[in-house]
Amino acid sequence: MAKTRILTGITTTGSPHLGNYVGAIRPAIEASQNADNLSFYFLANYHALIKCQDPELVHQSTTEIAATWLALGLNTDNVVFYRQSDIPEITELCWTLNCMAAKGLMNRAHAYKAAVAANLDAGEDPDFGVTMGLYSYPVLMAADILMFNANKVPVGKDQIQHVEMARDIAARFNHHYGQHFALPEAVVDDKVAVLQGLDGRKMSKSYGNTIPLFLTEKQLKKHINKIKTNLLEPGEPKDPDTSTVFQIWQAFATEEQTADMRQAFVDGIAWGEAKKQLFELVNGELAEARERYNELMGNPKFIEEKLQEGAEKARSFSAPLMTQCRKAVGIRPIG
Amino acid sequence: MAKTRILTGITTTGSPHLGNYVGAIRPAIEASQNADNLSFYFLANYHALIKCQDPELVHQSTTEIAATWLALGLNTDNVVFYRQSDIPEITELCWTLNCMAAKGLMNRAHAYKAAVAANLDAGEDPDFGVTMGLYSYPVLMAADILMFNANKVPVGKDQIQHVEMARDIAARFNHHYGQHFALPEAVVDDKVAVLQGLDGRKMSKSYGNTIPLFLTEKQLKKHINKIKTNLLEPGEPKDPDTSTVFQIWQAFATEEQTADMRQAFVDGIAWGEAKKQLFELVNGELAEARERYNELMGNPKFIEEKLQEGAEKARSFSAPLMTQCRKAVGIRPIG
Repeated sequence: MAKTRILTGITTTGSPHLGNYVGAIRPAIEASQNADNLSFYFLANYHALIKCQDPELVHQSTTEIAATWLALGLNTDNVVFYRQSDIPEITELCWTLNCMAAKGLMNRAHAYKAAVAANLDAGEDPDFGVTMGLYSYPVLMAADILMFNANKVPVGKDQIQHVEMARDIAARFNHHYGQHFALPEAVVDDKVAVLQGLDGRKMSKSYGNTIPLFLTEKQLKKHINKIKTNLLEPGEPKDPDTSTVFQIWQAFATEEQTADMRQAFVDGIAWGEAKKQLFELVNGELAEARERYNELMGNPKFIEEKLQEGAEKARSFSAPLMTQCRKAVGIRPIG
Repeated sequence: MAKTRILTGITTTGSPHLGNYVGAIRPAIEASQNADNLSFYFLANYHALIKCQDPELVHQSTTEIAATWLALGLNTDNVVFYRQSDIPEITELCWTLNCMAAKGLMNRAHAYKAAVAANLDAGEDPDFGVTMGLYSYPVLMAADILMFNANKVPVGKDQIQHVEMARDIAARFNHHYGQHFALPEAVVDDKVAVLQGLDGRKMSKSYGNTIPLFLTEKQLKKHINKIKTNLLEPGEPKDPDTSTVFQIWQAFATEEQTADMRQAFVDGIAWGEAKKQLFELVNGELAEARERYNELMGNPKFIEEKLQEGAEKARSFSAPLMTQCRKAVGIRPIG
């Protein structure tokens, strides 16, 4: 039986933080061990251009994210790990899908609607500051997914709509030109932890409340010490369920460790002590990977080699499928 | 001094007719003889997908148009003659430009506005039946132009706006990322003849009034005999300036021949005789090319070879420029 194909894109516009690790990277790397699946992971640098016009940031982020996934044990023999811009078939398919994608579909995309709403609130033209990149983003995402005939696309709730659009566009293409694309499904895992940041809100670059993934030990300790807590003294019982310290603990601990820490909160553990233990736990999980990460960042040519290998693997899927799609729409050699 | 670069796209959705020949192909082939210029001609098959979802038609039209240009004496040693879909950098640049192109710009495109107006008239949703292909078409055209740093783009009046959009997008890219693109200019040649069709309206596939370019002699005679005339008898003076027969004559004749025919009209030439002479004139200009055309259509592998040579030449421009653009936006090898 054909393996289920799972595709995950990672936009290259920032440095990975603990929230990315717990919510996306760790589960993806675990899933990639499952031999029933064929997993595709890609650095979405063409998506990055939509929101980031700083070339150095795009490049640096691509490097850091690639190094992060490799350092955390992504087995590139087992999965297809590539950089979007190394696959020329993707933008070619994107154009081909443009000709099958209803403009009305794009009008309903959440990200675009949010931009229009904000413009109207500000008394601006509805499309003020909206680029064709932002507007066409769901078509590029459809090309990313359909290029590899992905069956499942793990996403956050805000991305379900885009996978449904990819499905719509695929169905329309198949209807017009014959069966070429698998219809992808969004997979939302409610069990995946959404980590809180230093201020207790969702950990997110846009809130400036993140703990970067590969800090030095000293910096990691410093960041963990900055997690917001209340004024309860040592010895006073503390509520684990409203504590960011406990929430992060839980994301890294075994069930037994979690039960123990819950008891320690009830027993009035001091915030300082809880943070010290949290640092040790997180640092314990990340220490080895951090070393590998630093090695990789010191040997960027090795990262590039891995990406080139991945590109070759990815193109063994994308090149024949694109040839097939070209032929389907009437583009083939003469004679 | 660097040569002026001139770029012309030919959409591959129909068979060339006398109107295309007189209005576009003949002047373009003449211009390509000018050694001050470097001319790029391409078969715009990705544009064709916007309006044509019939794969056989797209393919057949691509073949016929390539054979037509070669048969009419396009010197491929002198110019760059290629098929759009052979240049993967074009759709890649198209995406990159998407991220620099304001959506508001597309809202003002004539073709899109016309579609919206027709929908509103019909009581439909404004975007009914509009694809992202139709809507994004000016960005693809910008990529076509900027990919070769074309200085001049000969167009009809309805296309001036699109060249101006390419200019806008290029300027924005240059402003953000440094000087990478020449700013293209639209060139409208008012002297180029717009040929009338069988019914006296502009010759156009959409009016079904065309005379295809490479008919057999017998069919060409038949078509010319169908040109609409009035009921004036032989011997009665006729007005050359309202006659389609005279108008087509003029497009193929020397000045002297034109003066002679004008006199013949005044002298009351019979319609049958005028059409006979017109057939001989047109047939005389096309006969040799028709033979070459038929040979080429019987040897499609030769056409493909010429297009492959052209693609190689085109990519010697597009590949280095795309590498430069990628680098500008932050996409380059790691390490």
